[in-house]
Amino acid sequence: MLTRAERDAAAERATAMLREAGITVTTDEQAALEVADFGLSRLEETGLTVLVYVNTERVCAKELVLFPRQLCPEHRHPPFAGTPGKEETFRCRAGRVCLYTEGEPTPSPAARVPADGVFTVWHELVLEPGDQHTIPPDTLHWFQAGDDGAVVSEFSTQSRDDLDVFTDPRIERAPRVSG
Amino acid sequence: MLTRAERDAAAERATAMLREAGITVTTDEQAALEVADFGLSRLEETGLTVLVYVNTERVCAKELVLFPRQLCPEHRHPPFAGTPGKEETFRCRAGRVCLYTEGEPTPSPAARVPADGVFTVWHELVLEPGDQHTIPPDTLHWFQAGDDGAVVSEFSTQSRDDLDVFTDPRIERAPRVSG
Repeated sequence: MLTRAERDAAAERATAMLREAGITVTTDEQAALEVADFGLSRLEETGLTVLVYVNTERVCAKELVLFPRQLCPEHRHPPFAGTPGKEETFRCRAGRVCLYTEGEPTPSPAARVPADGVFTVWHELVLEPGDQHTIPPDTLHWFQAGDDGAVVSEFSTQSRDDLDVFTDPRIERAPRVSG
Repeated sequence: MLTRAERDAAAERATAMLREAGITVTTDEQAALEVADFGLSRLEETGLTVLVYVNTERVCAKELVLFPRQLCPEHRHPPFAGTPGKEETFRCRAGRVCLYTEGEPTPSPAARVPADGVFTVWHELVLEPGDQHTIPPDTLHWFQAGDDGAVVSEFSTQSRDDLDVFTDPRIERAPRVSG
């Protein structure tokens, strides 16, 4: 749960990071930014701000903004409505993001995770501006920004965030804002 | 038909425009840029440079670079393989692009087209940074940059350029480079 003031402050900060990365954000887009705290009320640690450009039945494109060391918790996009589930490509625009997916665990991963977090996949990919990676449907993944935060473009099939399956049972994907 | 030198010069110029727009382009990406002259050998007038980020069976994302007043000729993306055809969203990143689609013709359109060109749809949308528009499948459209050129992100379903249907029968979509 976020207060309205917390949401608005995060949206303003994320907008500044997007603009710093050379991305135009309209006033309407800033107002509509999705600030997710995943129900943990620890936004600085676990959270994500999302600018959705388009999300139709066939195509979705977004910018993801992560504050310094902010992380998006482990999840997968399961099959639905006869589709294999969401396929997504991340391309780093600014800063650095460490992406963890299924595969051989990386011996000394760069991420710092909270002691009570639930993370089961540790195959690390470090993405800097110009680097990108495609995550197949229904594949576990999570990611954390580096010390300067990150702006990451996401190109995907339809987003149905309500269907995402998180490893940590405490997570609630739909943002709730009080007040 | 383009010479290798023409292709490389256009790729270098487009890379500079992308970087000016804040977009990181790797050396490999510059080498792989698609410079299309649509078979007319009038690249400055009719042409397009394309950076393809990803193009799978389900999702495609690209940057389109247009030099000042350069135009992409009228075409549509027809149904194929049981799909309705390519659905695409254009989002202007830098410069200005005038997009023409099916609909009420705009009385005094901003575009300047060659006398021998074939253009049948004249419903104008002017996109500047932060503006975007989604084009449904199988819908005629064409576009031209303003005086300073344009960088435009395209988010779409799979691109099958080989299936595009151009109104002008002289057009060849696949770039050919000599030498």
